Amino acid sequence: MDLRNFDLKKYNEEAETAYGKRGEIEAMADKLHRRGYNNIVVMGIGGTWAEWHPVVHVMRHYTDLPIYLENAAELCIKKDKRFLTKDSLVITASASGNTKEILEAVKMCKEKGIEVAGFSKDENTPLAKELDYLIANPCGDCEHSYLMFFMLALKLLNNRGEFKNYEKFADQMKNIHKNLIAAREKFEPEAAKIAKAYAKEPYSIFISSGTLWGETFLFSMCILEEMQWVRTKSVSSADFFHGTLELVEDEVPVFIFKGIDEYRPLDERVEKFCSRFTKKLTVIDIADYELEGIDDEFKVICSPMILTSLVTERLAAHYELTTGHSLQFRRYYRQFEY
Amino acid sequence: MDLRNFDLKKYNEEAETAYGKRGEIEAMADKLHRRGYNNIVVMGIGGTWAEWHPVVHVMRHYTDLPIYLENAAELCIKKDKRFLTKDSLVITASASGNTKEILEAVKMCKEKGIEVAGFSKDENTPLAKELDYLIANPCGDCEHSYLMFFMLALKLLNNRGEFKNYEKFADQMKNIHKNLIAAREKFEPEAAKIAKAYAKEPYSIFISSGTLWGETFLFSMCILEEMQWVRTKSVSSADFFHGTLELVEDEVPVFIFKGIDEYRPLDERVEKFCSRFTKKLTVIDIADYELEGIDDEFKVICSPMILTSLVTERLAAHYELTTGHSLQFRRYYRQFEY
Repeated sequence: MDLRNFDLKKYNEEAETAYGKRGEIEAMADKLHRRGYNNIVVMGIGGTWAEWHPVVHVMRHYTDLPIYLENAAELCIKKDKRFLTKDSLVITASASGNTKEILEAVKMCKEKGIEVAGFSKDENTPLAKELDYLIANPCGDCEHSYLMFFMLALKLLNNRGEFKNYEKFADQMKNIHKNLIAAREKFEPEAAKIAKAYAKEPYSIFISSGTLWGETFLFSMCILEEMQWVRTKSVSSADFFHGTLELVEDEVPVFIFKGIDEYRPLDERVEKFCSRFTKKLTVIDIADYELEGIDDEFKVICSPMILTSLVTERLAAHYELTTGHSLQFRRYYRQFEY
Repeated sequence: MDLRNFDLKKYNEEAETAYGKRGEIEAMADKLHRRGYNNIVVMGIGGTWAEWHPVVHVMRHYTDLPIYLENAAELCIKKDKRFLTKDSLVITASASGNTKEILEAVKMCKEKGIEVAGFSKDENTPLAKELDYLIANPCGDCEHSYLMFFMLALKLLNNRGEFKNYEKFADQMKNIHKNLIAAREKFEPEAAKIAKAYAKEPYSIFISSGTLWGETFLFSMCILEEMQWVRTKSVSSADFFHGTLELVEDEVPVFIFKGIDEYRPLDERVEKFCSRFTKKLTVIDIADYELEGIDDEFKVICSPMILTSLVTERLAAHYELTTGHSLQFRRYYRQFEY
């Protein structure tokens, strides 16, 4: 099947590269485990914060170890960070390796003598040069980041005697990309339809919960706002009923990204409400997407990978086609100093 | 000075009632301290979650005790809540005392044999009847909630040997309401002007950070969306630069609520950017509002009280006057089962 603006050959190569990092990532997890730590501090901003969100969220299901998901800009200046010490395991990521706030946060750590592990495009980025432990990750799409972040996070837990099925999980992840291609193919006609219907709307609401929240925040802010100049409101399924619901009416597009974790009843409540009060409801249900060769117990972990392949990758491509606004174009972001 | 739709006599009576709760609140803090706890779990949703946000935020500056600020609906169903035990100090609030998600969360705690302390309008609300420790709080405005929540939170810390200046803080809080009236009077002409200019705009962006974030989230979602059907995007000063900035243009209203805590440089960065790229910029700077009879060290704690008196109270009243949309009117919220 022909997917708009999707280079299957390049995708398969990147998929192989990403999964091929497994050994390197596991070796890094082992090294960090031997070094020891009493908490984990994950630093991100914008898209990277959002990508780490489900990883931290899932980790908390398997461990009582304190894990802090921090906005890098805030971490630099906040006063209440006694949790950040030489005994912390600090992790970050920046593909470009020149995200200003991430670099500042890493330098702040280094000044305190705190080591930092992370992911960057290659060995030569400004971030890579600062890191004590580096995974070079040349793969662009978010799903590769999710895959690698989860491998690191869950191998770390496995080394602590938690998430005991890590080996099985990592073995089965060699099947993830073919499933993500199948998900794309299944969703493609819908993506075209949704984009034609809603890409030019003056305002849209995006709702999800739990493991999908990070990707929803990312798609709404870092894709639609930044790359398409589309006005959005993203709100969690629980918060929706405490304000945003009053904005729903027949002509307001509402997107619900339905998850498969324990938060699903919250999404279903939103769906039940919205199906009564808007004619422009889109529900993308992760349960509709099969994962062949992957056990049920790992499906929640894969859910942000599925969602990102559907919306941040496919739906964005179709928004671009409808709006005529290139996903590459920015008027402010990284265009000058601010 | 005549403030639109503001009953000074009623305000002063409520102020006296709220501050008059001090003894009762301190006695409750003492009792909870003697009972003992190894972490604090605060449960809220929508407006109450937002009101607790700065309280938890400030507490973290003074203590290493683990404090969890939880969405009540999510807490009911989430699996990763091993932190919630009989040794937790669970605190909540619901003025009406019939907020569905709060009631469910309290019942979930009771079923586990976990005691709950909280605030409700009077002894007869459904919530009040479930609570093990109750402060009856008949005062409507958010600033009274902030005052009482802070008294409880900081007295709890004081009992642990933290926040040593609690007595001085609580003594000086008898001066807060006259300052909040003065702030209203100073802001009143500006409120009228802002509302006339922007209340009918199709979309507005609200930005803040740190101690002001909860109130910003509250004003945007629980006031403007719920009570005025105004479309908003609220985004933190740090996140703004990772997507939302691309939406700023001459005709897009942007509101920055500038705080006085250590996050202020993040707000200033946003202000510097937005002053170049929109003609519709509103900056409300907490530093512009004097607090007579209150020491500098307590001003950050008072900053959400100032902001709520300016926006959730004053600005909302002027939006109502401009839109003609009563703040009391809802089409869905609490109008029927959903």
